[in-house]
Amino acid sequence: MNQTIETMLAHRSIRAFKDEPLTDDQVFTLVKAAQSASTSSYIQAYSIIGVKDQEKKKKLAKLAGEQSYVETNGHFFVFCADYHRHHAAAEMHGTTVTETTQTTEKFMVGLIDASLAAQNASVAAESMGLGICYIGGIRNALEEVSDLLNLPNYVVPLFGLCVGYPDQAPDVKPRLPLKNIYHVDEYEQNTDVFKESLREYDQTISAYYGERTGGQRTAGWSSLMANKLTTPVRTYMKKFLENKGFPLK
Amino acid sequence: MNQTIETMLAHRSIRAFKDEPLTDDQVFTLVKAAQSASTSSYIQAYSIIGVKDQEKKKKLAKLAGEQSYVETNGHFFVFCADYHRHHAAAEMHGTTVTETTQTTEKFMVGLIDASLAAQNASVAAESMGLGICYIGGIRNALEEVSDLLNLPNYVVPLFGLCVGYPDQAPDVKPRLPLKNIYHVDEYEQNTDVFKESLREYDQTISAYYGERTGGQRTAGWSSLMANKLTTPVRTYMKKFLENKGFPLK
Repeated sequence: MNQTIETMLAHRSIRAFKDEPLTDDQVFTLVKAAQSASTSSYIQAYSIIGVKDQEKKKKLAKLAGEQSYVETNGHFFVFCADYHRHHAAAEMHGTTVTETTQTTEKFMVGLIDASLAAQNASVAAESMGLGICYIGGIRNALEEVSDLLNLPNYVVPLFGLCVGYPDQAPDVKPRLPLKNIYHVDEYEQNTDVFKESLREYDQTISAYYGERTGGQRTAGWSSLMANKLTTPVRTYMKKFLENKGFPLK
Repeated sequence: MNQTIETMLAHRSIRAFKDEPLTDDQVFTLVKAAQSASTSSYIQAYSIIGVKDQEKKKKLAKLAGEQSYVETNGHFFVFCADYHRHHAAAEMHGTTVTETTQTTEKFMVGLIDASLAAQNASVAAESMGLGICYIGGIRNALEEVSDLLNLPNYVVPLFGLCVGYPDQAPDVKPRLPLKNIYHVDEYEQNTDVFKESLREYDQTISAYYGERTGGQRTAGWSSLMANKLTTPVRTYMKKFLENKGFPLK
């Protein structure tokens, strides 16, 4: 087990940071690490917005659902899928790429590229002793986020990333059993085996929460998910993407 | 600069591996590292298929566009967005999550979750002295890949990941200039500045290719992209996703 893997296995999201900004050098190192991730056919279909303006951070914290750590942290990034520069490149060479960037395939590429980059930034930050927390909450209000950061067409904010000096020390949260998430040669075909591994996980999670809440919260993972996913959220997404130049054809 | 960040900055895709399989211990370490990545609201909306069957690897190599390194490597993973277990969880608790998993938002979450996990596996592999290469080429034929791995509904293969002992030592490929990919507080509004940074990058890439091909190939990044993106590919994607339970509502 080397240091890099130890860092990964020790990951837990940090939701309370010291009010101590990262230096520009630290920020640039994280961006360089992000850029070193693989990218589909060299397409580099993402951008990163670093938010330093305190008013903007305050607004983003509110839009993300009153998450104070979006406002108070060492640095706040917004990762975006981005084909704006590919449209600029096409313009420079007298051609058009609109038909291509409108496809579902290319939207997927943008999401994957941005996520690979973000995870490099996250692991790099943790390797420097910093803590991180992804903020999917910005997807509550992408229209507003997009306006706030003056994002042009073909740029879609996907998630935020808080980075900073941790001001708390939460435990690592147990993940799904390996046999539930990892399959060899084909997906587990036996529904009983599959559900059994979920039940096993439920017991782990129930004990985990029970211990941390003095027995007040004891739901397993499957009931958490069943409850959480009963009602759709962010149903404006399709329309928003269409307006941003991504009709997902 | 610590070892983890050095590993990231030294990343380049490996497309020739020694024919030496990873041990189960190595594979499980990579999966554990993958699982340690952040996940949206604990949803863990992905699965990983490890392909060991040599016939299946051969077929996947062909489907991905005759990429021999899909067949010959230390281990081949396929990362999938996965809501199959959430449907099983709902069934266990007498409810349904179909309306939710059909949304564009939840499809995005699956892609992001799977990608964060994959990038952890990649960096973990490189930290162990192994090489990696993402295989977007499997998206040439997701119907066939899906059949080959017996993937149930609500499971979408996104990309492959070759891991193994490198049998080549390619150079690191230069990324976009930082000022083109990283913006502070708002996206660069000045189109001239934006295009200037693309032209600067074009010169870097032109020199990079020129040096490696004895001057035979000297295209810059913007013309590569403008050419590449003129014609849409994988236009069956929308229909495939719909059939797999993801109508992207």
